[in-house]
Amino acid sequence: MLKYSVISKDNPDKLGNKARAGIFETDHGSVETPAFMPVGTQGTVKAVNQNFLEYDIKAQIVLSNTYHLYLRPGTEILENAGGLHKFMNWQKPILTDSGGYQVYSLSSLRKLKDDGVEFRSHLDGSSHFFSPEKVIQIQRSIGSDIMMVLDECTPYPCEYEYAEKSTRLTSNWAVLNKDAFEKSKPLYDHEQFLFGIIQGSTYKELREKSASELKKLDFDGYAIGGLAVGEPAEVMYDITDFTTDMMPEDKPRYLMGVGRPENILESIDRGIDMFDCVMPTRNARHSVLFTSDGVLTLTNAKFKEDFEKVDQNCDCYTCKNYSRAYLRHLFNAGELLALELASIHNLHFYISLVSEARKRILEGSFKEWKNKTIEKISIKNNSRENGMEE
Amino acid sequence: MLKYSVISKDNPDKLGNKARAGIFETDHGSVETPAFMPVGTQGTVKAVNQNFLEYDIKAQIVLSNTYHLYLRPGTEILENAGGLHKFMNWQKPILTDSGGYQVYSLSSLRKLKDDGVEFRSHLDGSSHFFSPEKVIQIQRSIGSDIMMVLDECTPYPCEYEYAEKSTRLTSNWAVLNKDAFEKSKPLYDHEQFLFGIIQGSTYKELREKSASELKKLDFDGYAIGGLAVGEPAEVMYDITDFTTDMMPEDKPRYLMGVGRPENILESIDRGIDMFDCVMPTRNARHSVLFTSDGVLTLTNAKFKEDFEKVDQNCDCYTCKNYSRAYLRHLFNAGELLALELASIHNLHFYISLVSEARKRILEGSFKEWKNKTIEKISIKNNSRENGMEE
Repeated sequence: MLKYSVISKDNPDKLGNKARAGIFETDHGSVETPAFMPVGTQGTVKAVNQNFLEYDIKAQIVLSNTYHLYLRPGTEILENAGGLHKFMNWQKPILTDSGGYQVYSLSSLRKLKDDGVEFRSHLDGSSHFFSPEKVIQIQRSIGSDIMMVLDECTPYPCEYEYAEKSTRLTSNWAVLNKDAFEKSKPLYDHEQFLFGIIQGSTYKELREKSASELKKLDFDGYAIGGLAVGEPAEVMYDITDFTTDMMPEDKPRYLMGVGRPENILESIDRGIDMFDCVMPTRNARHSVLFTSDGVLTLTNAKFKEDFEKVDQNCDCYTCKNYSRAYLRHLFNAGELLALELASIHNLHFYISLVSEARKRILEGSFKEWKNKTIEKISIKNNSRENGMEE
Repeated sequence: MLKYSVISKDNPDKLGNKARAGIFETDHGSVETPAFMPVGTQGTVKAVNQNFLEYDIKAQIVLSNTYHLYLRPGTEILENAGGLHKFMNWQKPILTDSGGYQVYSLSSLRKLKDDGVEFRSHLDGSSHFFSPEKVIQIQRSIGSDIMMVLDECTPYPCEYEYAEKSTRLTSNWAVLNKDAFEKSKPLYDHEQFLFGIIQGSTYKELREKSASELKKLDFDGYAIGGLAVGEPAEVMYDITDFTTDMMPEDKPRYLMGVGRPENILESIDRGIDMFDCVMPTRNARHSVLFTSDGVLTLTNAKFKEDFEKVDQNCDCYTCKNYSRAYLRHLFNAGELLALELASIHNLHFYISLVSEARKRILEGSFKEWKNKTIEKISIKNNSRENGMEE
């Protein structure tokens, strides 16, 4: 069982302050929460090498993906490599998503059945079947420190009737996941944990039912799935706030696929401990950079002769060494270095922001800091608006 | 005037041993020769950041390009940045090619005139005119430590009559280049040097004439241009061998655009001190890696479960941290990290090879080492042959 300690809540005496700082241990090291997990879908965080990820960006844990790794390179290669940590040379913790979301978003001809989901690979159209047992088995081959259960991720909007049926399916699968987890063993020399995923779309009674059913299974941690799929931010905050009240105090709480920096701070405020999102890296590759003074689209002409660093308050490799004008040149010239430097900065920004949030929670000054910070980081410093949401 | 010292020749008493080790100083540091210059055409070595370039690959000097930098970002931005060193954050020496080769290979509607060349940009079709004075002026804006004269690069094969006319043009321009160089001053706080370029296609009498005319102008160093443009390797070696005999002993000798690792070793043997080539980086991006045991095409299925490092004798970041199987996965999955890791390795291989050549020259054991090394590094370790020559 994962040992998770809540170290501090932000002024717990003040009514409504749910933000918490905690820590949990894995055989690959500890993770201080709140934590942001860079996304390394295919066993690499796009455009960033593991040296920068560890020492400059200071990632504590990365997320990789069961669906993608299963299709390529495949479990045989991963097993012969000694697991994903060795394969990608990342000795800190790894969490793997189960593939439920990718089956829903990427594959074609998806057929849901009581015992799993049939789908076709987005790579070559080949047929595959994921059952709860199967995704546990794949994640044993991967050797991730934290495995996720197979679930169904509902779209937004979602009819109540469909959401109810889907939540029941996810709950039934959760039982099978837990069972498969208990009946199997790690293949490598370290312990693996399993998180449940609470579904229920935007319906509070379904979220409550889902949380209650999953809690009985006593997972190592709990995720909220089925948000950040297109619903308004206020709905996401409301459902998150409602759901965290149903979640165990003594287990990590993970809000999947969220989000913009302001979404993350608002969700920390509602009691979330863990996050992942492709936004820092994907936006970086489109020249959209997050800074403490708002968002910059570096290809904008106004940065042509702007020889300042990307963010005056940042000490990442990119900001210590290069100017906005140089990055703009690299983007305009189609140079690969642009993608690396921008990705390093954005990941560093996300991880520093969440680390600062933790510090503020420990100091008891989170809420005031959060409100001021969101105001500053949400400014759009460009004439050209950018739509890179995910 | 550039101070260049030949420190050692490989057993100079042995007839025909021309390989030499030397050193020259610039205000951005010294360069030990033979030296390989990574190509950073647009102010960045493709896919590799400056930190890795300096500390892992240990590049002593990089090459950038007048034609490309003139078109983008343009001299105004470079001047306002304080020159290319500051713009790209590279504090070691930079050499800039004059753009003569790019006008010949990239631009359209090229019109040669007595006083320069008119061409259209390969980016937007806009009209431009490069004269010897103009390329000096652009290179003053760039602030490269070593500037190159404007020349005409002849194709292969080339009719004698055309080659003769072209060599005359290059010689005439050389006078104008030198004149413009002497009448202008650096814009920044460091000295700039100027190299002449010997042309003459594959005709020895033209090479001799070109060398003799250029020598009179007393450049800081001399390059051999117009080779590595499609002629057989034996022709290239023969012309190189012939031409180095015409070149001053006390100036660096630079063979432009060469080449494969074995071409470089053979040319060192014929008295060349400096090299540049896109091959290590371009081949890297096509999954072709150079090793001390021959060439690997990493996408080949035989590397699927090959968990060894790329090169057993290499201590680059890539070899210290990742396996062939992981790199193969990254290439197959279209991941950007593949391009960085492969480029780091190939550049490290080239620079280590040339550095080892220097060591052997100083020891007087170059020739024997060269013959053995070429045999080993030329092996193709793949079923699939690769045609990435440039």
